[in-house]
Amino acid sequence: MEKLVYLDNNATTKIDERVLDSMLPYFKEEYANPSSMYDSAHCCANAIEEARKDIADFLGVKNEKSIIFTSCGTESANTAIKGVVNQYGNKETKNHIITTQVKHHCVLSVYKNFKKKGYRATYASVNENGELNIENLLSKITSDTILLSVMHANNETGAIYPVYEIAHEAKKINKNLKIFVDGVQAAGKIPIELEGSDIDFYSISGHKFHAPKGVGALYVKKGTLFEPFMLGGHQENCLRAGTQNTPYIVGMATAAKLAKKSLTYELSEVKRMRDKLEDGILHSLKNAQLNSKSKNRVPNTTNIGFKYIEGELILLYLNELGICASSGSACTSGSLDPSHVLRAQKVPFESLHGSIRFSLSRFTTEDEIDYAIQKIPEVIKKLAKISPFQKELNEFGL
Amino acid sequence: MEKLVYLDNNATTKIDERVLDSMLPYFKEEYANPSSMYDSAHCCANAIEEARKDIADFLGVKNEKSIIFTSCGTESANTAIKGVVNQYGNKETKNHIITTQVKHHCVLSVYKNFKKKGYRATYASVNENGELNIENLLSKITSDTILLSVMHANNETGAIYPVYEIAHEAKKINKNLKIFVDGVQAAGKIPIELEGSDIDFYSISGHKFHAPKGVGALYVKKGTLFEPFMLGGHQENCLRAGTQNTPYIVGMATAAKLAKKSLTYELSEVKRMRDKLEDGILHSLKNAQLNSKSKNRVPNTTNIGFKYIEGELILLYLNELGICASSGSACTSGSLDPSHVLRAQKVPFESLHGSIRFSLSRFTTEDEIDYAIQKIPEVIKKLAKISPFQKELNEFGL
Repeated sequence: MEKLVYLDNNATTKIDERVLDSMLPYFKEEYANPSSMYDSAHCCANAIEEARKDIADFLGVKNEKSIIFTSCGTESANTAIKGVVNQYGNKETKNHIITTQVKHHCVLSVYKNFKKKGYRATYASVNENGELNIENLLSKITSDTILLSVMHANNETGAIYPVYEIAHEAKKINKNLKIFVDGVQAAGKIPIELEGSDIDFYSISGHKFHAPKGVGALYVKKGTLFEPFMLGGHQENCLRAGTQNTPYIVGMATAAKLAKKSLTYELSEVKRMRDKLEDGILHSLKNAQLNSKSKNRVPNTTNIGFKYIEGELILLYLNELGICASSGSACTSGSLDPSHVLRAQKVPFESLHGSIRFSLSRFTTEDEIDYAIQKIPEVIKKLAKISPFQKELNEFGL
Repeated sequence: MEKLVYLDNNATTKIDERVLDSMLPYFKEEYANPSSMYDSAHCCANAIEEARKDIADFLGVKNEKSIIFTSCGTESANTAIKGVVNQYGNKETKNHIITTQVKHHCVLSVYKNFKKKGYRATYASVNENGELNIENLLSKITSDTILLSVMHANNETGAIYPVYEIAHEAKKINKNLKIFVDGVQAAGKIPIELEGSDIDFYSISGHKFHAPKGVGALYVKKGTLFEPFMLGGHQENCLRAGTQNTPYIVGMATAAKLAKKSLTYELSEVKRMRDKLEDGILHSLKNAQLNSKSKNRVPNTTNIGFKYIEGELILLYLNELGICASSGSACTSGSLDPSHVLRAQKVPFESLHGSIRFSLSRFTTEDEIDYAIQKIPEVIKKLAKISPFQKELNEFGL
């Protein structure tokens, strides 16, 4: 088997074997529709309710009834944002909705759509470390604002935003606005504690923490009304129609329990390896710079700009060495536009096009990190030789 | 192991072992995000494109680009209906949308929602055999009608509707209206041939033909515009955001290939067993009557009304004997309202509450049918003894 060093865990993760094992009975014997009326169906329905408790526990929520199962993080975000605007938005005068410039496309696209329909949308900015200016963000709230969407951790830089504090302060200014936090990149990397917070909606996606792609969840604070997104049958307490995907729901619950147990490891060992990789690269290459120096980052992510080197070429050469990484988010791959997140941080053009995200997981090994530390500088040096920016690169000793 | 006679295949089906086998590599080694830029990701992306061809072939479509993968039949229906109304609907004057009284809740709920928003919704009726009055349906079309939704086969009675003819005639009256056909209960049971038809959207759901729950597809006729439902990343040619669920997409494609091969068996052997079950029950019980006498039915479904016997009690007793069946659709289980489909057919009250759907699959065995033919009359006779309708039941010799 060829070498594979998978450093793209923010795009998706490997399914934990124990997750797959927990799903198999629901692929084999327990295939009934959980809404049906016989014993085997009740078995599936019970498994889903047990999973709901596990996900509630994972998110630090006491009442598992606050958890709705969805088909992915994108669906969770669509449900929260469209759900709030359709429930509270004034069809005639339209209202105001806020998010940040660095949000994931699943949020920005929905905002763009509502903007087209006449709603006012405001995008709060970040500084060069990818940190939000909270006072600036809060100053945008008006009596007309119905929704504020922020992410818990940024997918590209790993920057953590103080979502509990933002929610609390925002509600002081306008108690009626709803807060949606996209927690897709936080889940499994840092502790989450929603109980007692001012957050109304919180989304997660299974495949970011070693469950399969195609399952997610949305926390909805008790008493928070919203127009359901997926309309149809009575499933999920009438809040999300569609036959429930029992195996994936059970798998995501297993993954959540494992992720909760692994948090200490993530915050110590994964972080140590991430820092080792980061330091290794920065020390070998003078044209390399960290794109987010924020102290408050998830432990698995680093985003490094290689000045005057083309990112797509770096990925191509890394691929040949079996190293998987990414520029920008996987959801926008194929487009040649540089990352909107790094542009919002005002990363200078010379490193913007050569910015690469490396994201680890608990399955990343020391050997893999050593290999990456050895190979990445070799690739950059090779590419420097064919770069049109010889003069600039010479200054970095390349 | 206890006996299990699964006669509820319209609610969901057992996953074919070959389907599970085809998914396993994508749960284990090939876990990359199909949108990423390295070899293992391209492997997943290629598998998805192969699956797209298989689904196109299954639906009798030449161009696989007409197929969009979704998370379920409900999402496919939401995408088609909301997509048409949001794309072509006049926000000020509102427009007209048509469906039938016997549609699945995933369609009726979306219609209800648009009705609440000011659109006019018309529901075409069916006769006592569950057959659509096509002239009546077509007469409802006006210049203002933007959408007509019909199902290919009814989930409760199995009645097949002449969707190609309806689409063709409807477009003659108003060439601009869009036709959405819900094919969820047809796929795997009867041949589907969309190429050259006037159908604009056609939905299917994997778990109705031995793939897992949580994956579906939507056919969209070339050149038909619609507002995407799930907004976010660039996946599915920008028509459906969200990281693609590679294993389930591959699994659904395997299931489609197997279902296509099994069609002859469905139309001969499954039909023969269904007819045997139907005849067996009708001959043993004078209070039993067929709820859809339509000649044109899918081969696996029968819906039988047991006069003066309570349906929920029948299901409870059948469950104790290991027989799985249903009253109404699984999506509305738990509600005590009798089936809206049977009410639309004007099934008389004395059998409405005691109507049970039995739905077979290619995994149903002759032994199981023999067991059901023996046990079902025993259950009905037992329940007749405790019924408050002794006088009426005596007339049936019960």
